Amino acid sequence: MTDLYPIPRSLTGDGVRATLARVAEELPLTVHEIPTGTPVLDWTIPDEWNLRRATLTAPDGRVVADTDVHALHVVGYSDAVDLQIDRDALDPHLFSLPDRPTAIPYRTSYYNRSWGFCVPHDVRATLGEGTYHARIDATLAPGALTLAELLIPGTDPTRGEVLLSTHVCHPHMANDNTSGIAVLTEVGLRLLEGGPRRIGVRLVFAPGSLGAIAWLATHRDVVPRITNGLVLTGLGNDGPFHYKRSRRGDTSTDRIAELLLRERAFDPHAQMLDFSPYGYDERQYCSPGFDLAVGRLTRGLHGEYPEYHTSNDDLSFVDHGRLLEATEMIEAFVDAVERDGTYRNLQPFGEPQLGRRGLYSAIGGGIDSRSVEMGVLWVLNQSDGTRSLVDIANRSGLPFRAIADAADALVAAELLAREP
Amino acid sequence: MTDLYPIPRSLTGDGVRATLARVAEELPLTVHEIPTGTPVLDWTIPDEWNLRRATLTAPDGRVVADTDVHALHVVGYSDAVDLQIDRDALDPHLFSLPDRPTAIPYRTSYYNRSWGFCVPHDVRATLGEGTYHARIDATLAPGALTLAELLIPGTDPTRGEVLLSTHVCHPHMANDNTSGIAVLTEVGLRLLEGGPRRIGVRLVFAPGSLGAIAWLATHRDVVPRITNGLVLTGLGNDGPFHYKRSRRGDTSTDRIAELLLRERAFDPHAQMLDFSPYGYDERQYCSPGFDLAVGRLTRGLHGEYPEYHTSNDDLSFVDHGRLLEATEMIEAFVDAVERDGTYRNLQPFGEPQLGRRGLYSAIGGGIDSRSVEMGVLWVLNQSDGTRSLVDIANRSGLPFRAIADAADALVAAELLAREP
Amino acid sequence: MTDLYPIPRSLTGDGVRATLARVAEELPLTVHEIPTGTPVLDWTIPDEWNLRRATLTAPDGRVVADTDVHALHVVGYSDAVDLQIDRDALDPHLFSLPDRPTAIPYRTSYYNRSWGFCVPHDVRATLGEGTYHARIDATLAPGALTLAELLIPGTDPTRGEVLLSTHVCHPHMANDNTSGIAVLTEVGLRLLEGGPRRIGVRLVFAPGSLGAIAWLATHRDVVPRITNGLVLTGLGNDGPFHYKRSRRGDTSTDRIAELLLRERAFDPHAQMLDFSPYGYDERQYCSPGFDLAVGRLTRGLHGEYPEYHTSNDDLSFVDHGRLLEATEMIEAFVDAVERDGTYRNLQPFGEPQLGRRGLYSAIGGGIDSRSVEMGVLWVLNQSDGTRSLVDIANRSGLPFRAIADAADALVAAELLAREP
Repeated sequence: MTDLYPIPRSLTGDGVRATLARVAEELPLTVHEIPTGTPVLDWTIPDEWNLRRATLTAPDGRVVADTDVHALHVVGYSDAVDLQIDRDALDPHLFSLPDRPTAIPYRTSYYNRSWGFCVPHDVRATLGEGTYHARIDATLAPGALTLAELLIPGTDPTRGEVLLSTHVCHPHMANDNTSGIAVLTEVGLRLLEGGPRRIGVRLVFAPGSLGAIAWLATHRDVVPRITNGLVLTGLGNDGPFHYKRSRRGDTSTDRIAELLLRERAFDPHAQMLDFSPYGYDERQYCSPGFDLAVGRLTRGLHGEYPEYHTSNDDLSFVDHGRLLEATEMIEAFVDAVERDGTYRNLQPFGEPQLGRRGLYSAIGGGIDSRSVEMGVLWVLNQSDGTRSLVDIANRSGLPFRAIADAADALVAAELLAREP
Repeated sequence: MTDLYPIPRSLTGDGVRATLARVAEELPLTVHEIPTGTPVLDWTIPDEWNLRRATLTAPDGRVVADTDVHALHVVGYSDAVDLQIDRDALDPHLFSLPDRPTAIPYRTSYYNRSWGFCVPHDVRATLGEGTYHARIDATLAPGALTLAELLIPGTDPTRGEVLLSTHVCHPHMANDNTSGIAVLTEVGLRLLEGGPRRIGVRLVFAPGSLGAIAWLATHRDVVPRITNGLVLTGLGNDGPFHYKRSRRGDTSTDRIAELLLRERAFDPHAQMLDFSPYGYDERQYCSPGFDLAVGRLTRGLHGEYPEYHTSNDDLSFVDHGRLLEATEMIEAFVDAVERDGTYRNLQPFGEPQLGRRGLYSAIGGGIDSRSVEMGVLWVLNQSDGTRSLVDIANRSGLPFRAIADAADALVAAELLAREP
Repeated sequence: MTDLYPIPRSLTGDGVRATLARVAEELPLTVHEIPTGTPVLDWTIPDEWNLRRATLTAPDGRVVADTDVHALHVVGYSDAVDLQIDRDALDPHLFSLPDRPTAIPYRTSYYNRSWGFCVPHDVRATLGEGTYHARIDATLAPGALTLAELLIPGTDPTRGEVLLSTHVCHPHMANDNTSGIAVLTEVGLRLLEGGPRRIGVRLVFAPGSLGAIAWLATHRDVVPRITNGLVLTGLGNDGPFHYKRSRRGDTSTDRIAELLLRERAFDPHAQMLDFSPYGYDERQYCSPGFDLAVGRLTRGLHGEYPEYHTSNDDLSFVDHGRLLEATEMIEAFVDAVERDGTYRNLQPFGEPQLGRRGLYSAIGGGIDSRSVEMGVLWVLNQSDGTRSLVDIANRSGLPFRAIADAADALVAAELLAREP
């Protein structure tokens, strides 16, 4: 988090490369450079923007904005300028937030040629008449859009891949989205350290919107293999988890998330949110042509916390424990996809005799309703080939682990078979 | 309202004709006379009933009921009588409401030969022993049942018709149903003044139950063209809107009504009601053989306000502003049917680049979630040919106008096509 | 209840036979003896267990457990023993409930060879050091599992059978399950006394779990004829009715139960419970291979009242009025199955003219919304061949009797026909 936080990321350019390079110190990333001019779905990769430094100097010589102090001080993708400019003419190029007067806002102008400085509103109020020196030392030139991925292959080619995706274009803010990058990196480390999985897991680190579009455009062959996925962002602040449903609203991903929020959210305010076409890269993964079973896991919701998209979203705004909970939630998600499946009871007429198979307690004086034994009864009763283990966990209210362990035990006892 | 209110309407006869004649001063109605004896579905048009005057005179010469004073004083379809009658023998022919002692009740006896007078209960209490003079100067003879309609044709024969239907048989009451007749007349005027529509709109003014049955029986060829409809009644009192669902409960009409009540009801108490087979002419339109997508729009519910079906339902009980709101609600309903449709996103893989098509704000610092821009995102995301614009408005919570405007803009930008 | 209550029932043996013999004094039962060793589904009929007497005598000669005093004092299926045994060695063979210290618990060990005594926890606390005399005079030997049934045949072979099933293995407890046995016996008497029915009704009295499994295994030809059923238990205590849904959750049985709980539960706390695979013999009837439309009717829920499975579940815990209500509820269930059906409106275009058929009140001044007349409108409107009378009762909120009477009247008037 500390290393990644201050990097001046943008849609393209060296900030993204530096970010991915830092992640690559932890994970064996594959970095893709997609050249300017490449058509990607309905879009075209634009010129690459690189900023050396932007400063705004007041008539009295005071430097009121300096990207060496905070990367948010410049509007992303600003034109290069080096101007002496009157206060009045400068004004439309200044961005500040009257209701958060000490925060620098985050602004970009990717597709409209423009330039500007972002300053705290309190600072803006001190800017009197006179001539200012606006200097933005930046280049906008053919180059590339940079993104990276890591595929942790599964052992069973019939099982497909889980997509875990985070955006890497937001500069110098902690929760949105250094937290997403850091958590996904830690998840990657843990998955690599874990044993082999039948499912593949694909980590994607890409600039928001266009990065996801570029990844989709360049991975059309991979898309059909994505069975489940999560967009990750805003995972470090002190707030409850929010899971935003995929477009279809009842995909396996949605049902697993419902289960995980029930089991692991540690917070009664954790919430399932309905899909909407506004937000992060779920917009692309859930566009109707792809319509992937990809939801979004966040804590704070975009636009709903005052630090959102300002310099107040700093390292003090995120918490190590919260990041760790998010990491474990995502691991549990991958584990649930791995273990989920639809089974068929091979002895469906009446209950099979569990006792002689060692699947049932000996003295019939009661049953712990939270136990694997209840899981055994639920799995046997529901496994007619129409309900997955996740469905059974949700219907029974039992922990997924109890259901999945029960299924394993029943398969071992030859009472259950996995459906193809 | 003022002209229509006192007319002594009934199931048949000159009261209905006078009502339709007054409406015809505003709208180019087509009047149908369906002769006595005509079979209509399971029914037969009965003899026509016309009342000249009914009076009930007390032993002391006091006229205690006189239809020249109030049309409700006689039981509708009473036999002609001219009798000197004892108080005791008269009693079964008197109708009054103990719990609304100053109101004249509304009673009819269409299919059982009978006669009677309706009086305030307070008046009834003053009627002492002695001989009364009951005089009902009425005729019941072959004639016709009268109804009228106005078709405002649409320009697109594939789009069908909206049915707007109101009953014209209730005499001398303001809310039930002079309000329905007046509002439907005003709606007709506005629709005629508006530009051409792709959908047709058919206004039906018919006596309750048998009138609707007669219209259905004589328009079997039209019925399949009815895509949506509303039965209109009780629209003038000071109360929230109630929309009663069609028989199927999830027709396009029901979904449009849900949307309109959310957007335009101006009152948090506006309510969606489930279908039931009791009520007004939705009973006929929603009989299982026709099963039309016809719901009912009312304010006050039959039987649930104390003025219901009494002389207290007078002009002071209805309000011009409420009638106007109802008119606008029905116009909005027609507009929603006109603009609704199912579309297909022609660029469904990822979000299309809206900026270069002028469909998106330039500076990416936020989006007004209530704007057409959100409408654009919703329409693009949901338009896979399975959801109509009304569905998208209901799912998104956006105003229908924003969704429909977005669809128009997207069609113009060649990003969207209407499904046949 | 009084005769049945103290009988020392078990999974097999003479206690079950004595129970069925007492019921057979009331009903013409057919008793089945299924020999030890018979394979039944996944199970095998075990040896038969018969207890003569079990006593536990303290070092001071005090008899602290004696099955002649209470049948629960011995663990069911205990091995025969006649031992002098130290207090310490005895301890694992003692069962008591610390939180219900005056109650004798109910314990069995059908499939694990073992032995034990059940005592009140207060008594156990008085058992000091020394040598105890544990004597269980029991036999475990080839024999049979005993169950009984009564088929009250229906007159219409196309209509199938209702299964009413209760377990007969619980010894010396009143609510669980002398109440089930007694209520089912009374239901049988009433059904036999009633006139002929189109549907058959099959009463099954069988030991829990294995008895139901044995019945299913030996009646594979009957199973497809079971259209509806109830498992009956715990019907005598002072608590609200609970109906537990069948596995599919929306069977005709579930919808009838919903209706009956609304109409007849006499208690706002009556509850519909979702299916779970733990409980009584619904576990077998609702195993996925059979998946019958069998729910469970109880008052107290197993494990949720403190008297459950202890000697405190005695005759004072059950109430005659509650047993009677349960009897009537089950009769109403059978009646609803008998009268339910799907019909088709033969005059579906508009409402038929009910008045000339005597199906409608003459003076049109109002309708009693709870009357058969409303039932007539509902049945006509909904009878398109897709909804049963029970569905119509549930949708309309009218009493089932009003709906069914309306259907009968409409069939008589040739406005309605029963679908095959």
